[in-house]
Amino acid sequence: MAQWLRFQHQGKSGLGQVQGDQIAVYEGDLFNGPKATGETIKLSDVTIDIPCTPSKMVAMVDNFHALVTKLEHAVPAEPLYFLKGNNSFLAANQVIRTPKSYSGKVVYEGELGIVIGKRCHEADEAEAAKAIFGYTCINDVTAIEILNRDPGYAQWTRAKSFNTFGVFGPYITTDVDPSKLSIKTILNDQERQNYPIADMIFPPAKLVSLISQDVPLEVGDIIACGTSVGVGSMKPGSNVSIIIDGVGQLDNRFE
Amino acid sequence: MAQWLRFQHQGKSGLGQVQGDQIAVYEGDLFNGPKATGETIKLSDVTIDIPCTPSKMVAMVDNFHALVTKLEHAVPAEPLYFLKGNNSFLAANQVIRTPKSYSGKVVYEGELGIVIGKRCHEADEAEAAKAIFGYTCINDVTAIEILNRDPGYAQWTRAKSFNTFGVFGPYITTDVDPSKLSIKTILNDQERQNYPIADMIFPPAKLVSLISQDVPLEVGDIIACGTSVGVGSMKPGSNVSIIIDGVGQLDNRFE
Repeated sequence: MAQWLRFQHQGKSGLGQVQGDQIAVYEGDLFNGPKATGETIKLSDVTIDIPCTPSKMVAMVDNFHALVTKLEHAVPAEPLYFLKGNNSFLAANQVIRTPKSYSGKVVYEGELGIVIGKRCHEADEAEAAKAIFGYTCINDVTAIEILNRDPGYAQWTRAKSFNTFGVFGPYITTDVDPSKLSIKTILNDQERQNYPIADMIFPPAKLVSLISQDVPLEVGDIIACGTSVGVGSMKPGSNVSIIIDGVGQLDNRFE
Repeated sequence: MAQWLRFQHQGKSGLGQVQGDQIAVYEGDLFNGPKATGETIKLSDVTIDIPCTPSKMVAMVDNFHALVTKLEHAVPAEPLYFLKGNNSFLAANQVIRTPKSYSGKVVYEGELGIVIGKRCHEADEAEAAKAIFGYTCINDVTAIEILNRDPGYAQWTRAKSFNTFGVFGPYITTDVDPSKLSIKTILNDQERQNYPIADMIFPPAKLVSLISQDVPLEVGDIIACGTSVGVGSMKPGSNVSIIIDGVGQLDNRFE
């Protein structure tokens, strides 16, 4: 297992692996054999960036049995998704902000993120499994009152693409089997979500394979696997954390 | 009025203005004061590229009165849109291809494209009008049988984001008022669409202003303004042209 992050330190961008409270610094391309420099930096001395720069974030709808049951939706026959705008990307510890044009409720959605490490198009499940570089934590922030306010058209992309609404990180964790893990969302010290990844309708390799039939997945692309039960709104001034033990803890404040 | 294009010629990428059957070659950034080199190339000697590389294509739903009336939808109170995947972009004269994973009907949708020339976020209509660099022709190709096949979730992004489904060009035309123009779609020499841009529910400057309240629009971004009546399917081997007199003619074959 390795936990990769990107960071800012003394005015420079860096790449490294987390080792306890230190970062082992690397140079080169995260997805193409980066090399350790031998340097270490204290984790507490850096500003964490998003761990990669996706060309797209494909975000799933209705991908957990518990949520589908609660919403009284049918179990989908195929992955249902939209694109989350790249402008929305936000790193750990940065502030999620209410858009100027919106005064309604803003909700957190804790999710598993799949990070693609090898370009993958029309791939079978075995190839798709190999294309997965690792996993990250996602907070798929949503201006929930926009989603269904038009009677004929659900505004998924719009409700979820405001600046700062696509939160992911702090790390990309490799060589971990997420099927045994759980996703927790903590809002102001209260647990609001705690659901097993094993409840996923289309699990990671199958999901990557199926989406790759539609669109090529590029190195660094992210699939937000969808959330489950326990979604709720955040009051300005809240602290929100998405925790996947063994993958990472994504902390942000909401204003 | 100027008509800008990008092209390949003798193994090199180029930028230029169309002047009759010639291209006046320019160097530099299309959106930042490109300079004429004095060189000319025959238009028939180049391969046309997409005229810019959008960071996103925002695509409108239900934006023409005639279509909304025909579909018996309500006139939307706000712009309804999704993101078309960047992988889908295709230039004039290139081949639109049926995806391997899909055997249903593929439809053309002739549309006006707005090209952003100045970054624009939370802009009023006057600022938005100034942010519009020019206009292009769009064929918003759609795997129509995917769109509504899930009973609970309309798959807009998926049905419209296959490789080769985001066709635009051949030019970006500046200093033209599209409100007096019409959009025609010709399929195998038969006119299938012919509708006035004046029927648009959210016209260009208003649309740019409203979308910019949600997301920043970057230089080179494109807004596909939505289609109107006359959408239909293409048989493999068809030729399809989107024509906006004074803006351009976008020709493609469909296989």
